[in-house]
Amino acid sequence: MEMNMKLLVIGGVAAGMSAAARARRLDEHAEIVVFEAGPYVSFANCGLPYHVGDEITDRSELLLHTPASLKSRANLDVRVNSTVTSINRTEKTVTVTGPEGEYSESYDKLILAPGAEAIMPPVPGLDLPVVHGLRTIDQMDGFLAALAEKGAGAHVAVLGAGFIGLEAVEALVHKGYQVTLVEAAPQVMPILEPDLAVVLHRELRSHGVDLRLGVRAEEISETSNGAKLRLSDGTVLEPQLILASLGVRPRSELAAAAGLQLSKRGAIIVDENQVTSDPDILAAGDAVQVRFNDGREAPIFLAGLANRQGRRAADQACGHATVSQKPVLGTAVVRVFNVVAAVTGASSRVLEGVTEYTTVRVHGSQHAGYYPGAKQIHLTGFFAPDGRLLGAQAVGPDGADKRIDVLATAIRAGMGADDLAELELCYSPPIGSAKDLVNMLGFTAGNIIFDNCPTWDWRDLPEIVETDLVLDVRNLPEVEGKFKLPQSLLIPLPQLRDRIEEVREAAAGRRVSIHCQSGLRSYLAQRILQAHGVECQNFSGGAISLQFGLEVLESQK
Amino acid sequence: MEMNMKLLVIGGVAAGMSAAARARRLDEHAEIVVFEAGPYVSFANCGLPYHVGDEITDRSELLLHTPASLKSRANLDVRVNSTVTSINRTEKTVTVTGPEGEYSESYDKLILAPGAEAIMPPVPGLDLPVVHGLRTIDQMDGFLAALAEKGAGAHVAVLGAGFIGLEAVEALVHKGYQVTLVEAAPQVMPILEPDLAVVLHRELRSHGVDLRLGVRAEEISETSNGAKLRLSDGTVLEPQLILASLGVRPRSELAAAAGLQLSKRGAIIVDENQVTSDPDILAAGDAVQVRFNDGREAPIFLAGLANRQGRRAADQACGHATVSQKPVLGTAVVRVFNVVAAVTGASSRVLEGVTEYTTVRVHGSQHAGYYPGAKQIHLTGFFAPDGRLLGAQAVGPDGADKRIDVLATAIRAGMGADDLAELELCYSPPIGSAKDLVNMLGFTAGNIIFDNCPTWDWRDLPEIVETDLVLDVRNLPEVEGKFKLPQSLLIPLPQLRDRIEEVREAAAGRRVSIHCQSGLRSYLAQRILQAHGVECQNFSGGAISLQFGLEVLESQK
Repeated sequence: MEMNMKLLVIGGVAAGMSAAARARRLDEHAEIVVFEAGPYVSFANCGLPYHVGDEITDRSELLLHTPASLKSRANLDVRVNSTVTSINRTEKTVTVTGPEGEYSESYDKLILAPGAEAIMPPVPGLDLPVVHGLRTIDQMDGFLAALAEKGAGAHVAVLGAGFIGLEAVEALVHKGYQVTLVEAAPQVMPILEPDLAVVLHRELRSHGVDLRLGVRAEEISETSNGAKLRLSDGTVLEPQLILASLGVRPRSELAAAAGLQLSKRGAIIVDENQVTSDPDILAAGDAVQVRFNDGREAPIFLAGLANRQGRRAADQACGHATVSQKPVLGTAVVRVFNVVAAVTGASSRVLEGVTEYTTVRVHGSQHAGYYPGAKQIHLTGFFAPDGRLLGAQAVGPDGADKRIDVLATAIRAGMGADDLAELELCYSPPIGSAKDLVNMLGFTAGNIIFDNCPTWDWRDLPEIVETDLVLDVRNLPEVEGKFKLPQSLLIPLPQLRDRIEEVREAAAGRRVSIHCQSGLRSYLAQRILQAHGVECQNFSGGAISLQFGLEVLESQK
Repeated sequence: MEMNMKLLVIGGVAAGMSAAARARRLDEHAEIVVFEAGPYVSFANCGLPYHVGDEITDRSELLLHTPASLKSRANLDVRVNSTVTSINRTEKTVTVTGPEGEYSESYDKLILAPGAEAIMPPVPGLDLPVVHGLRTIDQMDGFLAALAEKGAGAHVAVLGAGFIGLEAVEALVHKGYQVTLVEAAPQVMPILEPDLAVVLHRELRSHGVDLRLGVRAEEISETSNGAKLRLSDGTVLEPQLILASLGVRPRSELAAAAGLQLSKRGAIIVDENQVTSDPDILAAGDAVQVRFNDGREAPIFLAGLANRQGRRAADQACGHATVSQKPVLGTAVVRVFNVVAAVTGASSRVLEGVTEYTTVRVHGSQHAGYYPGAKQIHLTGFFAPDGRLLGAQAVGPDGADKRIDVLATAIRAGMGADDLAELELCYSPPIGSAKDLVNMLGFTAGNIIFDNCPTWDWRDLPEIVETDLVLDVRNLPEVEGKFKLPQSLLIPLPQLRDRIEEVREAAAGRRVSIHCQSGLRSYLAQRILQAHGVECQNFSGGAISLQFGLEVLESQK
């Protein structure tokens, strides 16, 4: 009789539970054991901030499965409060410390899905009870109890403005707490372009959040009423509670002790089928290294990828053909009050200095502009010299995520500016636009890259005002009493054809750097000036992006 | 001195105005004249139903441009109320009848963008004043005046349940009219899969719409208070007003008279760069024939395609490199009250009998199921035997359009089931799912196509109940007092492993056709039974799709 395979899975949340469930579907007769160090399996960790914010009112909604439900549904042997303390690769066994003491378990195949753990920088006081975390059900319960004890209106400092930090801020404001958000970087959500992050800064401040950027917590001490929090700029705050969400790192001590290959930063190295340096051990989820579409290698902490890596590891463990891991785009999204920020693929931070690329900014509404409720999405794309899309980011109301999902699909397919221009996307007035913002991104990128329509960037502004004539082609009502660059020449687009000579004289041999409100009319102006032999460049993104950029430049002073 | 090009454009709405504006951007010195037969140019014809429904309250929002604004902005010579009556291809001139009489204009290049016109079947009385249309601003004004005269509460019959008919119905219900919707096909939105159309039927009826499917208007006569409308089933209705939206056809008499090549159904034949059978005449928009990704050739009536064809025609006219027309997917969307229905690519209607394909149905919420407000999207995909996606349709709340936009991009890229499974899409609890519905479609298609997990369809049901054992693996609370197929064996999935022999005995050599609620647990059951050597197939889409399908079968009796 053929022996049944014995599969052990370490970690019972996203990647681990996806692996175990998939393995069962592939092999009804395998013996499958899942070890979870904590008391809960398969819980919705991405949902924790929303239970804190009372949006998900029923805590049990976060607990998707129990060991019992997994036993009856998938015949899985799930052991909670069970920590695997070592792996013996020669014997193919693991040592487990569980509720009934220490024991060992053998395996044919072993899948590591230990996840990530919170980064705790060496800040004095960061380990005090007044400082909470929000990565596990237990931490959430503790934080909620502390919040209730302090009562609404209390002052909470959130350290770290990544995804969880931002979601927690929103939750706390919803519940009526006073919130200070402290971030060491000069912006929230550091993966976001700085000019797009400005939109989030405005949204946070408009909801009363005390935003402290470019400063870090230096010391925390407990007081009778809460904490004393000293920041790197010398400020001392006195919050009643602190939530630390300072990022995470792969949890890989077990893999390291077993001699598996790790990256310098401690991520488990796997091949494109999740196989570690030991062919009988696979790894998936937050603990593993991935290769990005821009060539970088790093761990990444996203639930969707974790689930699919778990599935892939199970395929591999069960000898089933699988879909290899493609270069990772890192598509991610966060909602901050009424704004959604979404990213996919490479950003200017990873491209700058590494490869030549063009930044294209467009602004447009989520549906037909004449249909009520139209609000602007700010969409930025990064394109290779051959027109290929490398990355995209969007900030705006509902619909920013839709554009990024489409563009993530386009990047995966290797699409370029012309392909985006030709995509056929849903249009009816309440739902899209006849020329969707994604199409507009493609049109605009094509104009810039293929049609010899050079652009300038807000980063160039300090230099441009010294060397170029700035031409503003907005209409008077858009300028009067509103944002205007000093020393710019104002000629509304409809008058430009009659005033070419005026431009030529004002330029006096200098290049003309044009802008309008969103970037469209300045492109039309560029076409007109080019036809009259005037050297010029267009500001992609118009006064909207220009103001965002100026706010960034100002904050850097 | 080089002569400036002279470009004439016939038609001043979507395709025509896109062509003229693009031509100006490419050639500042060209002479560009646009002839529009009606009094308005560049109006938002897709917005008309929304002005009728008072969602777009300001009528001027629909009028995007005027001849004066187009003159000042783009130096276009736009002539309204000007009908081109003939083309002399030898002389390269057109004859125009305008406000100042008849004259002729020469051209170097001519772009035809005449659009489409309403189909008027030979129904007696369809030309009576009580019957309105909704394709032009004038028609809208006339319909609004008639509605106002009759007053809210009046009974309006809408003939034709295509996009405009459905949007008009919604608008009329919003305004408080009693609406009867008459459609000759057995369903609304005939491009939609019949089981998905059931969702729209329920939505329409739940808003009080009197839905008459499978019947056509046979005779209309005027009465003192409105109209008498006789239907093909003998029913006589007495609506106070009638709106006819019975579809459109290419407006191509001018092209025909000029001897340009037309399709049998009267669409202008163009190549992939919009060139007609005369190299100096281009055509774009609703009047031209396109090739679909499934190989069919036909005209199509979509604003987004019209705009891009206009742009392409201008590129070609100006000698500018252009992006050739790709095979058309026909992505389209309609909102009907709280339901959005969206389609892209091939449907079962065009695939059936032509090629082998697999239908895959999944149901899932627009964002994390545990986040409040989760509602089901019903998503159907059609896959080739090699796993390539051929078409997709979705019906549901917000988010159906997002999935179809992603899938339209995937089809254009030639993606297959495995690619969909690996797409990285935005996920946070209020915005998506860690395994998005698009990923689930890919997983499910892969299981069916590559992993030997055969499926059955609701169309097979009459046969299945005769030949197979139907196994229902839902839990008791999902079945008791709810939908249940007669003669099916009920074994909740968690009990299946212990009751395999019971299944085998009940089957008595017959194949087992499994279903659950959504199709996931029945797939797990299929895996278990297969592992025990039981021949079985899974109903993709579960009881949800089964009920939709039964409603279709019932209506066909």
